[in-house]
Amino acid sequence: MLSHPTLPEAPVSASCHDDDHPHEECAVFGVWNAKDAAALTALGLHALQHRGQEAAGIVSYDGRFHSHRGLGLVGDVFNDPRVMATLKGNCAIGHNRYATTGATLLRNVQPLFAEFAFGGLGVAHNGNLTNSDSLRQELIRRGCLFQSTMDTEVFVHLIAISLYATVEDRLIDALKRVTGAYSLVVLSEDALMGVRDPMGVRPLVLGRLPGEDGKEGSWVLASETCGLDIIGAEFVRDVEAGELVIIDDNGIRSLRPFGETKPHFCVFEYIYFARPDSVLEGLPVYAVRKQIGKELAQESGVEADVVVPVPDSGVPSAMGYAEASGIPFELGIIRNHYVGRTFIEPTDHIRNLGVKMKHSTNRPALDGKRVILVDDSIVRGTTSRKIVDMVRAAGAKEVHMRISSPPTKHSCFYGIDTPERSHLLAAQHDLATMAELIGVDSLAFVSLDGLYRAMGDGRRERYCDACFTGNYPIPLVDHDREHGPGTA
Amino acid sequence: MLSHPTLPEAPVSASCHDDDHPHEECAVFGVWNAKDAAALTALGLHALQHRGQEAAGIVSYDGRFHSHRGLGLVGDVFNDPRVMATLKGNCAIGHNRYATTGATLLRNVQPLFAEFAFGGLGVAHNGNLTNSDSLRQELIRRGCLFQSTMDTEVFVHLIAISLYATVEDRLIDALKRVTGAYSLVVLSEDALMGVRDPMGVRPLVLGRLPGEDGKEGSWVLASETCGLDIIGAEFVRDVEAGELVIIDDNGIRSLRPFGETKPHFCVFEYIYFARPDSVLEGLPVYAVRKQIGKELAQESGVEADVVVPVPDSGVPSAMGYAEASGIPFELGIIRNHYVGRTFIEPTDHIRNLGVKMKHSTNRPALDGKRVILVDDSIVRGTTSRKIVDMVRAAGAKEVHMRISSPPTKHSCFYGIDTPERSHLLAAQHDLATMAELIGVDSLAFVSLDGLYRAMGDGRRERYCDACFTGNYPIPLVDHDREHGPGTA
Amino acid sequence: MLSHPTLPEAPVSASCHDDDHPHEECAVFGVWNAKDAAALTALGLHALQHRGQEAAGIVSYDGRFHSHRGLGLVGDVFNDPRVMATLKGNCAIGHNRYATTGATLLRNVQPLFAEFAFGGLGVAHNGNLTNSDSLRQELIRRGCLFQSTMDTEVFVHLIAISLYATVEDRLIDALKRVTGAYSLVVLSEDALMGVRDPMGVRPLVLGRLPGEDGKEGSWVLASETCGLDIIGAEFVRDVEAGELVIIDDNGIRSLRPFGETKPHFCVFEYIYFARPDSVLEGLPVYAVRKQIGKELAQESGVEADVVVPVPDSGVPSAMGYAEASGIPFELGIIRNHYVGRTFIEPTDHIRNLGVKMKHSTNRPALDGKRVILVDDSIVRGTTSRKIVDMVRAAGAKEVHMRISSPPTKHSCFYGIDTPERSHLLAAQHDLATMAELIGVDSLAFVSLDGLYRAMGDGRRERYCDACFTGNYPIPLVDHDREHGPGTA
Amino acid sequence: MLSHPTLPEAPVSASCHDDDHPHEECAVFGVWNAKDAAALTALGLHALQHRGQEAAGIVSYDGRFHSHRGLGLVGDVFNDPRVMATLKGNCAIGHNRYATTGATLLRNVQPLFAEFAFGGLGVAHNGNLTNSDSLRQELIRRGCLFQSTMDTEVFVHLIAISLYATVEDRLIDALKRVTGAYSLVVLSEDALMGVRDPMGVRPLVLGRLPGEDGKEGSWVLASETCGLDIIGAEFVRDVEAGELVIIDDNGIRSLRPFGETKPHFCVFEYIYFARPDSVLEGLPVYAVRKQIGKELAQESGVEADVVVPVPDSGVPSAMGYAEASGIPFELGIIRNHYVGRTFIEPTDHIRNLGVKMKHSTNRPALDGKRVILVDDSIVRGTTSRKIVDMVRAAGAKEVHMRISSPPTKHSCFYGIDTPERSHLLAAQHDLATMAELIGVDSLAFVSLDGLYRAMGDGRRERYCDACFTGNYPIPLVDHDREHGPGTA
Repeated sequence: MLSHPTLPEAPVSASCHDDDHPHEECAVFGVWNAKDAAALTALGLHALQHRGQEAAGIVSYDGRFHSHRGLGLVGDVFNDPRVMATLKGNCAIGHNRYATTGATLLRNVQPLFAEFAFGGLGVAHNGNLTNSDSLRQELIRRGCLFQSTMDTEVFVHLIAISLYATVEDRLIDALKRVTGAYSLVVLSEDALMGVRDPMGVRPLVLGRLPGEDGKEGSWVLASETCGLDIIGAEFVRDVEAGELVIIDDNGIRSLRPFGETKPHFCVFEYIYFARPDSVLEGLPVYAVRKQIGKELAQESGVEADVVVPVPDSGVPSAMGYAEASGIPFELGIIRNHYVGRTFIEPTDHIRNLGVKMKHSTNRPALDGKRVILVDDSIVRGTTSRKIVDMVRAAGAKEVHMRISSPPTKHSCFYGIDTPERSHLLAAQHDLATMAELIGVDSLAFVSLDGLYRAMGDGRRERYCDACFTGNYPIPLVDHDREHGPGTA
Repeated sequence: MLSHPTLPEAPVSASCHDDDHPHEECAVFGVWNAKDAAALTALGLHALQHRGQEAAGIVSYDGRFHSHRGLGLVGDVFNDPRVMATLKGNCAIGHNRYATTGATLLRNVQPLFAEFAFGGLGVAHNGNLTNSDSLRQELIRRGCLFQSTMDTEVFVHLIAISLYATVEDRLIDALKRVTGAYSLVVLSEDALMGVRDPMGVRPLVLGRLPGEDGKEGSWVLASETCGLDIIGAEFVRDVEAGELVIIDDNGIRSLRPFGETKPHFCVFEYIYFARPDSVLEGLPVYAVRKQIGKELAQESGVEADVVVPVPDSGVPSAMGYAEASGIPFELGIIRNHYVGRTFIEPTDHIRNLGVKMKHSTNRPALDGKRVILVDDSIVRGTTSRKIVDMVRAAGAKEVHMRISSPPTKHSCFYGIDTPERSHLLAAQHDLATMAELIGVDSLAFVSLDGLYRAMGDGRRERYCDACFTGNYPIPLVDHDREHGPGTA
Repeated sequence: MLSHPTLPEAPVSASCHDDDHPHEECAVFGVWNAKDAAALTALGLHALQHRGQEAAGIVSYDGRFHSHRGLGLVGDVFNDPRVMATLKGNCAIGHNRYATTGATLLRNVQPLFAEFAFGGLGVAHNGNLTNSDSLRQELIRRGCLFQSTMDTEVFVHLIAISLYATVEDRLIDALKRVTGAYSLVVLSEDALMGVRDPMGVRPLVLGRLPGEDGKEGSWVLASETCGLDIIGAEFVRDVEAGELVIIDDNGIRSLRPFGETKPHFCVFEYIYFARPDSVLEGLPVYAVRKQIGKELAQESGVEADVVVPVPDSGVPSAMGYAEASGIPFELGIIRNHYVGRTFIEPTDHIRNLGVKMKHSTNRPALDGKRVILVDDSIVRGTTSRKIVDMVRAAGAKEVHMRISSPPTKHSCFYGIDTPERSHLLAAQHDLATMAELIGVDSLAFVSLDGLYRAMGDGRRERYCDACFTGNYPIPLVDHDREHGPGTA
Repeated sequence: MLSHPTLPEAPVSASCHDDDHPHEECAVFGVWNAKDAAALTALGLHALQHRGQEAAGIVSYDGRFHSHRGLGLVGDVFNDPRVMATLKGNCAIGHNRYATTGATLLRNVQPLFAEFAFGGLGVAHNGNLTNSDSLRQELIRRGCLFQSTMDTEVFVHLIAISLYATVEDRLIDALKRVTGAYSLVVLSEDALMGVRDPMGVRPLVLGRLPGEDGKEGSWVLASETCGLDIIGAEFVRDVEAGELVIIDDNGIRSLRPFGETKPHFCVFEYIYFARPDSVLEGLPVYAVRKQIGKELAQESGVEADVVVPVPDSGVPSAMGYAEASGIPFELGIIRNHYVGRTFIEPTDHIRNLGVKMKHSTNRPALDGKRVILVDDSIVRGTTSRKIVDMVRAAGAKEVHMRISSPPTKHSCFYGIDTPERSHLLAAQHDLATMAELIGVDSLAFVSLDGLYRAMGDGRRERYCDACFTGNYPIPLVDHDREHGPGTA
């Protein structure tokens, strides 16, 4: 008799990161020519908090550079008016970090600030360079000094060693050396700059605050449009893939350091990362998610009594599923938003009680029902299993799981913290085994076709969907060098 | 010409309490005969965090009493394993506090612990005594020493001065002296006790954790069933209005110190305070809220394109409204759950930008639409106005506001932090003026009849709805003495 | 063969309390009619920091009472200007606490503030009531509620239950109920009061700050004159044994609630507790200490090369010894004043290295020398042993220890934290055994006669020297009740 | 008539740095092959705390590098056992920092750690490079990235860009590029290294801990011998001027990268910086200080009643003065060692009261006396003036100040924080004017000859006494370039 497949044991954790989602690593923000620039930056970072909760930092400039960085939420790092008062100036950049390694060290918090031949420079970065290890080793051999483990430091060294004279030329020189996915916001003494990698994998948007009393207005850069909305800035446009925008006292200029490039925007931003009220590359995130739910209903409909989202990310897709299927949408799972730090070290006793810090079931909405659970993705499968168990314990007669993304079979190398392939449930098991492992009566993922239909037809080639397809649009320089090509 | 009515200026605040809701003051929790009693209490308090976020405390007993209290969320106050390790014992009680006055002083944090003739006693209290000022003055005249400003201290002094011998008799003696709304959890050296006032205004439920290995199980008391669910405890029943349950090594006993009493459970718990997954007095909160939304749709239907909740509390009613009306339910407003402390002192400049820390609009779901906004209540009206403005700024063509409670015209004296009547919008203006002040095209509240229909027929006399009707079931001793009867 | 006597193992501790001295429990301070009263109080407490380092608190009054208390040094508890700004008013009292029990709980920090029939009252207390357990039990039986374990709370309850009308009469009523050693500073809405027990065991001095611009000056109360000096206040006089001074808008009055009393001031204040620059009961502390050193030299002279103090408390006596003996005074032991909290949990390895956080030897001043070590007292003997070992390791050929107090053979019940008799080295062993245990070539204590000679003749009956003689001038009510009379 | 000279207004400050001494900038420590290496380093830094109180850091190595740095005292930065537990390994280096600029930024805290071609490297530095600005500009032009403002970073970059292969060769290469005063402790993956500049201006000593159980012992490097003493390490020898010691698994080697060099040890270490129990370059600090006092008495004797030190640094010299003059030594000024942070923002009122946080007078020892005050140096003169005023206010009839160093007429560029010449009292005024400004009846400094006599004859050329003589043994590269040669 064959042994039964089992899930790796779920990490028993009560932290805010106990969920089993891929994690975005960062948000960036910048503002030029605005009163209270640092305060506006703090607000922008607050609106972008979902992209990184481990650390935050701001660099401002008023003839001199000022900076403050710390571990924690934006509201914790910048809650002292005396600190805000030191961040003087009419321009500023900021950064939220999601920690990829166990402990976020303070030396790894952005924006990175350094002194160059041409003056100071602050840099905030969202993404991941695929040739950073190679570059790092080369730079170290050359005598460059690395004081952190961040990709951003590689980039900043490339600016430092560039033989060009101006910040702008050095920045472009550096950009041409790096491979990978990145959206950068850069503050020099003369300009605020924003740049997206040639494929435009990570988002970056441009906005504008009207000036008061007939004065010149302000320019704003943010990872998502919700970072504009919070301060009342108007959305102007997405910074384009491969575009460098330079904002200075003469206005705004657009450069194309890489010439024409072919965009491949991260499709997972629509599925999970971005805030639902953001509009990225012309598509409203919320509408895409709802539409995916509709596609799911059409592709993998099942008879049931209620459609229940795994909150918060599964809500719009579940709404779409309910709308398309006619099955009532119910809040069968409640999320406790007060979860902060881990605060109870679980004993065996507590572990056996099946304590859930973050989710609880709304029993009357589940008891005796055939339940369609809608979630955005399955990574390791451990959280899914726990949630299914909860829902069954609340009396659900059947549990059918519907996932608003295709199976996640490949790791991301472009700025998202995913486990290695060997820990991706969908990379290791077929659908039937996955269903068994997760404990559901049926399991379905939206198809890749369905996903792209939800996003509007004919645009498929404009996206990066490597996590589903393994088609990596940007060379995995470091990975291939270490593991050999085609192993990702 | 008449001058135009205007709203009082909205408080410009970025804190987590900038919303314009009534505020619950407390949660209580207790556990008897359980391993890790303090950890279970911390978990229970975490699940009840929505009832009070300003301070938390736990008292445990293992032959000696142990206690820890602090300002902040449960997860902040109890995040040090070394602190948890000091809270030894198999029984514990806990408390979450919502601060009614500007600054929560540490000396006002519960549970209150004191030493009596019969030994130590910990007391945690949710509610408000309506004769506490009178009692306090009497007790002070008698020589009692008040070290805090909490009602709970009045109650504890009454126990201390009682001439009865046993804890139980003294507790009952004290209960007979106080008037008001209260749910108390009390831990003595011999027993865990729970009691609700004769009207049962505030909730308290009883649960049970099965014992391991054939051992005797544990008893649990909690403000709401969600406090049982998090630790896997079974709901046994509500503690009844006017009931005192005493749990000790001989099991559980039920006493009726006030004889038969007529329950008047707070109807606002269903509308706003309780967590949607709780079941109170036999009614699931979530189902009641949805049903109110349906009643609203029937009573005050209006042609529109979308039904949009003010999250999170407006969501179930909006779902019900949408279901009943057939108008699509959309998440047109997004809530940022990362809001913690106030962190930006708003300059005029930032104030003018209309910064909203907590809510943002999902423009694509609102732009060009006729919007039905569903919220749970209007207190001062200031937040409503801001949200309506946001929704219009996002392109809504029409805004119709529907409120899932009747107009709040009277202050609560039973444990809810509401402003004085003079600051209650509905106590000062008629519906048309209110609509004008809030800036909506139409405004409707669910009727009192509609509300009770939503809760199931024929039970109306079992509730306290004084905030809507002014029918106060419990005498307002202190208030009447100061302001004269009939002035509330 | 007889077994060798050994010392109890020295507690391996690196904290600032690793020394083996008796510990003072508190300092009190009060100021009336002064601008910046709370700031002056903080300064006074800072100058009195040597009397208690575990916690500090201030209560001020400006029509309302304000208070702030916390764990740590005065400079830590009051280092936030925003906190100081809340302590408004022209009068204030303050308190430093030395923790007698393992952990100082915040609820045990003074001044205690409570609300009475006549208004608020703040009380700060230095000393120990010898009938507090008896009173406490009686008060609890009466229905009084104890929220801390401090003697002060007993006293405050007695004020609360007094049948007299005025604060003053109630205070006197309470004073007559308590037995023990105490110096109290009390702040009511109308007056600042200071009182010493009938024996005047603990110190309390009265000072005066001149008024600015012809205005009425300020009155100051402090545990020692150094608390006056820091703010430039003039010393007026000691509050007398059994005196109650009442300072209000009509000036200062002196009452004698106990009639004529016989003073017994704590002789150990001169030996160790008080700061050397203080003048207590007319005697300068520094001069007394030097003179004791001279007496020691005359009583127990020994041939040696250097006189070395155990810093800081042994310095003046060592100077006196050197002066009288003609043997050079040398700083052979250096004290590290940066020691704050315990910061290294000592492994066996570190313990074996003999790490000393607080003292180090100045080898060139000791190597090859016959050393006379001068210290103020021996309690358990553990620290003495460590210091002797250090001095020998630094090359001392001989070590002769001279102690500037008679042998400490009895516990203090009047406000000093001493171990039980069974842990007092001098209560258990004769001089020869003590010398052997401590590892010295010779050991001598100043005689009781020598001590009193050093303090000026004929005043012996004015002091409490119970720790040396067992003659307790104040009845040990609680102790005798529990252990039987004559057992202390 | 000429206008009267006046002192610049004394900074009103209550911090621990309100005194008017030159300030040492750093302590370094390192240990190789020892259990609990990080704990030993913390202890060593604790003993060296007098050399820097603003920040502390440790880097350890156990196959990987570990590091922790923070603002505050060693006992504050390393008080969490969980932090200590992360600093694994048998070798470690550490650093205490005195902040030279207003706010110590966390990015300026040492040891600096960076990643090189050859692996990681931690560097801790005491001293000052006189060509760091020049080098910094050159390195920045070359493309080096500066993330702090510390000299140490210059040094580390020079290692990084060296074309040599081994750490050792690169270190030597870097050493040859820098000019200045420095003692460095360096930890690589293979070795612990210590180096002093060619003149050996700043101290560095070598010690040894015996191995347990026949195992190989440990090597220790420390700024002063008191850093060895605390952990029971034996003093082996001073690292020599211009010497590089390399400690690895093969033992210890000594290199002389600069060939033979002429030592010029900082004479001020003996006068003020070093701890009295340290022995530096063969001379015990304490004995030198006492001897200077004797020289002072012989050079500038004056009739008086008492010799009073300004504690703590003036104590040994005052003892020497008293011994030589036969005038009694008295503790006329008491120092409050509990002073931590500034905690009272002084209002005019408090300023006028003449509050002194750190020193108080022992009136009985001063009143009516002719006082010789002994201090170690006069920098700006502001603190001296305050102390003289205090002493007169305590009743001194005459005040004669004697200074145990020659007049400080020149700034230090070798690692000591002194004001510019224009703020040095002795650089601006003759002796008579200085006496008048400070308010003394007479003023005398020890002569340069007297100083050197006190240190033993014939060694004068072995010291740096530039602060007294202006003879700078190391070129002031940056200063001369900016201000012109001969302007220091």
